[in-house]
Amino acid sequence: MNDSADTTDASGSDESADTAESVDAADAAKAADAAKAADAAKAADAPDAYEALLDRARRWNTVSSASGVLSWDQQVMMPEGGTPARSKQLSVLSSLQHDLLTAPETGEHLADLDGVDLSGDQSAAVREIRREYERADAVPRDLVERISEASTEALGAWERARAENDFEAFAPHLERNVELKREYAAHIDPDRDPYAVLFEEYEPCLPLERAETILAELRETLVPLLEAIRESDADLAVDTFEGSFDTDTQEELARAALDRLGYDFDRGRLDVSSHPFTSGNQFDCRITTRFDEADPLSALGSTIHEFGHARYTLGLPDDEFGTPLGEPRDLSVHESQSRLWENHVGRSRAFWDHFLATFQEHFPRTADASVRDAYEAVNQVHPDNPIRVEADELTYHLHILVRFEIERDLIRGDLDVADVPETWNDLYKQYLGIRPETDAEGCLQDIHWSHGNFGYFPTYSLGSVMAAQLYAAAEADVAAMDGPSLDDRIAAGDFDALHEWLAENVHRHGSRYETNELVKLATGENFSADAFTDYVESKYGALYDVSV
Amino acid sequence: MNDSADTTDASGSDESADTAESVDAADAAKAADAAKAADAAKAADAPDAYEALLDRARRWNTVSSASGVLSWDQQVMMPEGGTPARSKQLSVLSSLQHDLLTAPETGEHLADLDGVDLSGDQSAAVREIRREYERADAVPRDLVERISEASTEALGAWERARAENDFEAFAPHLERNVELKREYAAHIDPDRDPYAVLFEEYEPCLPLERAETILAELRETLVPLLEAIRESDADLAVDTFEGSFDTDTQEELARAALDRLGYDFDRGRLDVSSHPFTSGNQFDCRITTRFDEADPLSALGSTIHEFGHARYTLGLPDDEFGTPLGEPRDLSVHESQSRLWENHVGRSRAFWDHFLATFQEHFPRTADASVRDAYEAVNQVHPDNPIRVEADELTYHLHILVRFEIERDLIRGDLDVADVPETWNDLYKQYLGIRPETDAEGCLQDIHWSHGNFGYFPTYSLGSVMAAQLYAAAEADVAAMDGPSLDDRIAAGDFDALHEWLAENVHRHGSRYETNELVKLATGENFSADAFTDYVESKYGALYDVSV
Repeated sequence: MNDSADTTDASGSDESADTAESVDAADAAKAADAAKAADAAKAADAPDAYEALLDRARRWNTVSSASGVLSWDQQVMMPEGGTPARSKQLSVLSSLQHDLLTAPETGEHLADLDGVDLSGDQSAAVREIRREYERADAVPRDLVERISEASTEALGAWERARAENDFEAFAPHLERNVELKREYAAHIDPDRDPYAVLFEEYEPCLPLERAETILAELRETLVPLLEAIRESDADLAVDTFEGSFDTDTQEELARAALDRLGYDFDRGRLDVSSHPFTSGNQFDCRITTRFDEADPLSALGSTIHEFGHARYTLGLPDDEFGTPLGEPRDLSVHESQSRLWENHVGRSRAFWDHFLATFQEHFPRTADASVRDAYEAVNQVHPDNPIRVEADELTYHLHILVRFEIERDLIRGDLDVADVPETWNDLYKQYLGIRPETDAEGCLQDIHWSHGNFGYFPTYSLGSVMAAQLYAAAEADVAAMDGPSLDDRIAAGDFDALHEWLAENVHRHGSRYETNELVKLATGENFSADAFTDYVESKYGALYDVSV
Repeated sequence: MNDSADTTDASGSDESADTAESVDAADAAKAADAAKAADAAKAADAPDAYEALLDRARRWNTVSSASGVLSWDQQVMMPEGGTPARSKQLSVLSSLQHDLLTAPETGEHLADLDGVDLSGDQSAAVREIRREYERADAVPRDLVERISEASTEALGAWERARAENDFEAFAPHLERNVELKREYAAHIDPDRDPYAVLFEEYEPCLPLERAETILAELRETLVPLLEAIRESDADLAVDTFEGSFDTDTQEELARAALDRLGYDFDRGRLDVSSHPFTSGNQFDCRITTRFDEADPLSALGSTIHEFGHARYTLGLPDDEFGTPLGEPRDLSVHESQSRLWENHVGRSRAFWDHFLATFQEHFPRTADASVRDAYEAVNQVHPDNPIRVEADELTYHLHILVRFEIERDLIRGDLDVADVPETWNDLYKQYLGIRPETDAEGCLQDIHWSHGNFGYFPTYSLGSVMAAQLYAAAEADVAAMDGPSLDDRIAAGDFDALHEWLAENVHRHGSRYETNELVKLATGENFSADAFTDYVESKYGALYDVSV
């Protein structure tokens, strides 16, 4: 990874980097040095419009990070009565942020920079700002406000509908959200697939076609694998981790895990909230978790998941705070970091080789469990569970596929809102082999559509797929170094090599590269499902004694 | 208290309200009804410029309240490493707030409202906004930035100087802060006493002359009273409350006290911070405290103090959030609310009649203490203490007087920075009978001057003086009602009558009235030191068996 990668086609074209390997190493180094020098000269001589544009971007991104603190507080610390003031604070900050972004000056600076020869970093920053500006500028403020009002109403209706298992009460709100979001997409680009436009709200730097290819591969791999697991006689050891586990001790365990993994409590906090999340910036990134007395492995897993998010954020460059180079590369990459730690570390045998003793110190009743027992307990597959947020590593993606296909068809106008419950249940039967008993446990279970978030769900699966690809590359790179394998290091409680690999190949780049480009630079391959399908087939094949 | 008070001269003139008592009651009621009706008609027909002005004010005040959340978080929750991002967030919000306030539109709306016939509430809101706008508009932004930079440097220098007892190292920074603040005052009004102009930063609605008269009365009362106490043989019972008191139990006790007094935990929180403070708005107002193992009465007192601040803020009208009518009336009035609860309730015999049993439940080692013992312990006078923040109810004001006289003379150019330490020590000798042994325990003890806050100190004493006047009026009003006296109610743990009196006479008005006007409407008298001097002479005369 070095800055000569600037010459890679920023649109995500696949060819340019592949040929580099055939170039003589000395020549390549010379060329890279020359490119770096040219880049540094450009950076030192940045046009005034560039500096002015970055100053503006720092301001709106800093307002956004202030809003992040208010949201964290709202979910973790705020007393119940504080809502009216907090809503107003967030709404005023959001409108100030929008004003800064869409002010005529932003457009003028961007116009001044059109065709100007910039360094690679500068071009990337301008690319990111330009996209953000053009999207915000394309959508009338009136529509943004109507969407916000509709989603506030829809949220209340969804809560009631779910409580009463009454899809019809929610349907008109869903209908309205779909219409408004189609209108929104049309303002941004009336000639493109509206779902592709909305997907870019969450994953702006990955063409939807590539995402769809990856999701199709997931379906082809996971549906038969899950069928085989359902029919398997394998009996995983889970009894030891069932029963009642004191939540104060669970919290101590979570802190011990974070300490071992390398969470910097001088730049973060662990708190409890009703839904675990991560919030912050490169100086102060906080995680939350929740504890279930009946399930100590769940809280531990979600703490490790949030740790992955936080490590990414804390690894962004300090001196780029507020610029695109100091912002994370969107949702799939962020989710890749959380899933990598949650699944490839926290659900690995190597991790439990290291961590089981600590677990047992906190919960002596598990003293008899073997590493194999723990490994089986954290990797159980639950085909009968209809709820996404309770899903295991494997079935999770089938839950996502159902949502992805439904929301895509809704936005494209290929599915009526009235047909959502039946389509949902049919797809659950087809992919997971179960049919939810109620809509509350079916198509009403998630908050996303009431918020008008269409295009968000796929990023969860794309992140897991990317995690597998990144982890495989890290394993290979560590294998090529002197010393133990990555697995052996983790079994010894040494996470340094993995941290260094992620910092070097992912974190430090911020939004410097587009998504596929980042993956390709880190792994040498285009973003694909190959590593993920290899990983799940091999891991779950062995666990459940099935072959596919 | 009713809205006919709108007709009182808003400049704080003393005559108009006095004559009202001679008017026949029925006529007065009729006149008040007519005034109310006229006011309501004006309010219903508010000019567009008024609505537009209020909308702008709501925005900048809401940004300010968002900054308040960030500051609370910084002092209570933020991990150490978060400082760089937090400084940037606060600085961007502060500049956005300044932009909103000083935008040409603000001036245009104010100009449009010049001479327009507005309701009493509207006139008050415009008066407050106009003053804030004119002050902000008068000072060049460049000067504001130089002040901010100088105070950041001075803060660091002050911390080092205090640690090393080296006044000379701090002197150039103090000099610079004085100069910059004189320059600041000259921009606002070059023809007025600069100290009076600076005092208005903290207490904009009380003429400095009145404040000076009150402070002079304090000096005349307290210096001889303290001399008499120093020579008194009285031996107050304090032993029972000395020793070591577990801080977790102190926290439980603080929560129990807040519960009894009527703190609404659905709209607030209690946390620990290095300096106790209160922060928030009418929906969410949080307090902090700190615990000293050796002194359970100190934490309890400061918790009750902050409770008073929080009750005021939580009593501001909900529907005026972000307008001057929903903002507190500046520092003296705010301090009057905290001191009223801390001193007139928390240091009263009646309160300990009620609360001692709870104290003893938490700390059974104090089971033998009588109410009289507790009363004496919370009212000890410590003439030998040179530190303001550790001062008792009585000597506190002598600490303030020293600072007030020095900062006033510095700003007026009547005292050189080099002479501050000697002047300080001479005044301590003169007022308190002690001479600090070091500058660290003398003129370097407070943070205020390093921040460039000149004119702030007097508000501490003015608040205590006002507390005595308000409390005496509340006592008289409750005495005129059916039922027990205020004292007897408090002894029975019933704080409702006091809450209602404060809500009605102080809290609900926000910044509706100027300071003296508010006091006069609440108490029937101009703001003066009379009630306070009566209170301390009677209370401490009895405690120390002295007469003055």
